[in-house]
Amino acid sequence: MPNSTPAQHERTPAADNTTMFIFGAGGDLVKRLLIPSLYNLDRDQLIDPEMQIVGIDLAEYDDDAFRAHLKQFIAEKAADSHSEGRIKSLDESRWAEFEQRIHYLKGDFTDEAVYRQIEDAIAASGNDNAIFYCATSSRFFSNIAKQLGQAGLLTEQGENYRRLIVEKPFGHDLESARALNADLLEVMREDQIYRIDHFLGKETVQNILVARFANVLFEPFWNNHYIDHIQITAAETVGVEERAAFYDKAGAMRDMVPNHLFQLLAMVAIEPPAAFGADALRSEKSKVLGAIRPWTPEEAAHNSARGRYEAGQLDDQPVPGYLDEDGVDADSQTETFVAMKVMVDNWRWVGVPFYLRTGKRMSARDTEIAICFKPAPYAQFRNTDVERMASNWLIIQIQPNEGMWFDFQAKRPGPELEMDTVKMGFAYKDFFDLPAATGYETLIYDCLTGDQMLFQRADTIENGWRAVEPFQQAWSRESTTGENDIEGYAAGSDGPDGAHKLIQRDGRLWHQVGSPTGPGVAPVPSGR
Amino acid sequence: MPNSTPAQHERTPAADNTTMFIFGAGGDLVKRLLIPSLYNLDRDQLIDPEMQIVGIDLAEYDDDAFRAHLKQFIAEKAADSHSEGRIKSLDESRWAEFEQRIHYLKGDFTDEAVYRQIEDAIAASGNDNAIFYCATSSRFFSNIAKQLGQAGLLTEQGENYRRLIVEKPFGHDLESARALNADLLEVMREDQIYRIDHFLGKETVQNILVARFANVLFEPFWNNHYIDHIQITAAETVGVEERAAFYDKAGAMRDMVPNHLFQLLAMVAIEPPAAFGADALRSEKSKVLGAIRPWTPEEAAHNSARGRYEAGQLDDQPVPGYLDEDGVDADSQTETFVAMKVMVDNWRWVGVPFYLRTGKRMSARDTEIAICFKPAPYAQFRNTDVERMASNWLIIQIQPNEGMWFDFQAKRPGPELEMDTVKMGFAYKDFFDLPAATGYETLIYDCLTGDQMLFQRADTIENGWRAVEPFQQAWSRESTTGENDIEGYAAGSDGPDGAHKLIQRDGRLWHQVGSPTGPGVAPVPSGR
Repeated sequence: MPNSTPAQHERTPAADNTTMFIFGAGGDLVKRLLIPSLYNLDRDQLIDPEMQIVGIDLAEYDDDAFRAHLKQFIAEKAADSHSEGRIKSLDESRWAEFEQRIHYLKGDFTDEAVYRQIEDAIAASGNDNAIFYCATSSRFFSNIAKQLGQAGLLTEQGENYRRLIVEKPFGHDLESARALNADLLEVMREDQIYRIDHFLGKETVQNILVARFANVLFEPFWNNHYIDHIQITAAETVGVEERAAFYDKAGAMRDMVPNHLFQLLAMVAIEPPAAFGADALRSEKSKVLGAIRPWTPEEAAHNSARGRYEAGQLDDQPVPGYLDEDGVDADSQTETFVAMKVMVDNWRWVGVPFYLRTGKRMSARDTEIAICFKPAPYAQFRNTDVERMASNWLIIQIQPNEGMWFDFQAKRPGPELEMDTVKMGFAYKDFFDLPAATGYETLIYDCLTGDQMLFQRADTIENGWRAVEPFQQAWSRESTTGENDIEGYAAGSDGPDGAHKLIQRDGRLWHQVGSPTGPGVAPVPSGR
Repeated sequence: MPNSTPAQHERTPAADNTTMFIFGAGGDLVKRLLIPSLYNLDRDQLIDPEMQIVGIDLAEYDDDAFRAHLKQFIAEKAADSHSEGRIKSLDESRWAEFEQRIHYLKGDFTDEAVYRQIEDAIAASGNDNAIFYCATSSRFFSNIAKQLGQAGLLTEQGENYRRLIVEKPFGHDLESARALNADLLEVMREDQIYRIDHFLGKETVQNILVARFANVLFEPFWNNHYIDHIQITAAETVGVEERAAFYDKAGAMRDMVPNHLFQLLAMVAIEPPAAFGADALRSEKSKVLGAIRPWTPEEAAHNSARGRYEAGQLDDQPVPGYLDEDGVDADSQTETFVAMKVMVDNWRWVGVPFYLRTGKRMSARDTEIAICFKPAPYAQFRNTDVERMASNWLIIQIQPNEGMWFDFQAKRPGPELEMDTVKMGFAYKDFFDLPAATGYETLIYDCLTGDQMLFQRADTIENGWRAVEPFQQAWSRESTTGENDIEGYAAGSDGPDGAHKLIQRDGRLWHQVGSPTGPGVAPVPSGR
């Protein structure tokens, strides 16, 4: 029984009117995610019907050409059943209305002329709210902020707001993240800054918090008395695709760990916040990332493994190795896979290792948190046919097939006392209509309504980079000595040997990537 | 992944050869349950191929007539798809072999002549093991035991055993149960006595122990810190059927509470036993039943409600009231429904009420344990759209649709923080081939192999009767004063008003009888 029926349930109110300026409007992110999200928000009446969107970039568009460019891409994607559904189908008449709010401003955002045009656009819009969305390469973030500040565009008057959304990557190490935070905070307050991590827009990620804190069932065993270790996996089957220029400079660690994987770690590991609000929740996240044990570079090298995919097979199709991908330097020293072990040294987690791994061209697409519990005491079964105790597992599946699954022991039917592992599961789609969504809808709506809960605060970002710094130091040392430890792994496998050794050394095994979950895929009944 | 594959898994060994003497062989139980169980055990090669079965009763049968009588009933039931599957289909050639082991001994089991014939049969059988099964009316139990003792049939020599299986009801109150225990223990040791409660033969009942003690996940919240209250329900849709002669003397309380419902209470409430063996487990069960708070008769009256079904509808068919059933005395003062509240005053459960109810002609067939947890703290959500915290529930479904279901809160998709109740479930049938079985197979096999774990010990039985004694006292007092409080309830409803008042007085509600469980019956998704 839902807590409230649709009738009782008040409609989520539309956000106040505003103008959104998107820097880097010609880029992939805008057509792929931002515009579809705004279209979905408009469909759901969650944005003001007068809200205007202004794309800014160097490319030669006018309003019509920009709209046509967006529409062509979105219509194509909506029709492609293989692409992840951002928009189920493009409603022509709805789009025709919606696109009237999209405008294009050709200009160089390092040039102050652009900012005068922005000022004019705000004045013409009839409302004084504005959101500036940095969808550019990260090297422009500081400059855009500085120019916005110098142009007075970040000054709020009365009830009106001026907010900045910053895409990832937010820095490439602790030092650069600190510098970027300093640049932003020189021209605006922390509460004007929305550092985005789109993982936090995913329903399942948010649901981790609800599961943990709206249910009494989880808290009693959510600690080092009962949990043996935690695994966080973000496995992709895709290779570097069209992102080589960016990816080859970043690598798996920078691209995924301090942002996505650490966000998942924080969600699973934080203490209960005093309130579900931005301040309380982000303070807890910052605390837990700050509690990650600072390895020495030697310890970091010992507690990590890097890999680079080589030619292999995926879905029975041959795929090339990383070094043969378009746009990748043949001398590349970039990892496409990383596994690492971190310890969270607080009361709740001391002694519980967190094993993290992420990679491209792995055997299955699978983002999950796998919690392995300590086994029940064996002694009570010593006189039975039970030979060993299996561990309970809780799998929180982020994508695909969002849900949660408990592996536990049940009695095998028959006159003797014997057990098998069975599953108790919850699939999000069995209970909710999951609307076609990008994951950005919630984040944009939150920014429009001034809710920073799902955005990263300066200290959280810096604590994340601080935790990865020893790994970066270890690897940069290796690069200079030529002792690079990047191991090859076949595309379609689950990473290099080193990743398996890393966890097997501790007497544990990785949870199978993309392993079947849910009651529909029961183990084969084993007869007597 | 099962703990052991079929290949690794050793076949359950057949029990040693024995002869089983069944007193009351002409009765319903024998054709309905005992012989089918022995047939199934033979099919699974769990009994010795030489084991003989000797039915004893007054009826005029010889071996052939007795075998024909059994076969006719069993074949009919196996063919009837509406009857609960005891035997899926009767294999003619297997039966022809099996029935050769069935014999009939016409005689009066109050007459010592019968016991000399038993002695001869044992001598002729070639082995000295024997099991005596009291499937008679309970008034013969003491006499049969006494005669067996006097005839020296309970004396064990060397490795051979002599065991007595006693059917329910084991007494009709504390005093009669004590007297029966005394009679039995005068002629044999406790470890020769197998007091049967066929509920304990059910896989799901045994699985409660495995779930609780082979998994670390349950123990942390299995106590009064997290559990608000526990409901134990055994609801039947059938009326009194052909059992009026017995039932009208017993009533719902005696028929169900001190045996079945208290066994379920014990399974859910016991402390972890030191070992999964008869002694350790039965001691824990005795302890927990002994910890039930002894109400005064006044308190018992206040904490209970009785009902008797009246004419009503079930499956859209009219059904008669209890007083109009064949064989029921028109002046009957027998309850067909009882609800009661008991408290278990030990460290784990103090303050957690156990609400028990059982009845005939209720809205659905449903035996379940429903555990209601305390809600999570609300304060953390005070600034969100969440208006109240719903409780988590764990439903352990004994029959039908055996399994376990957790009700918990998940985030409703969308940009606001709102929740719905969802279910995480495990259905036994999704993971195991449940063989057609009576529930007696395990119990008989256990007796054949000398495992008393699932049988009731003298002290457990007496502790159960002690706990119901105040209710019996209260009601017998009412009967004599004429202030009988048995309320009518319509057949097809879930008991009288008094049962609802009993729990509503405490600010709680009964879990819906036969309510949908499992992920297949999701709540209707509620849109925004």
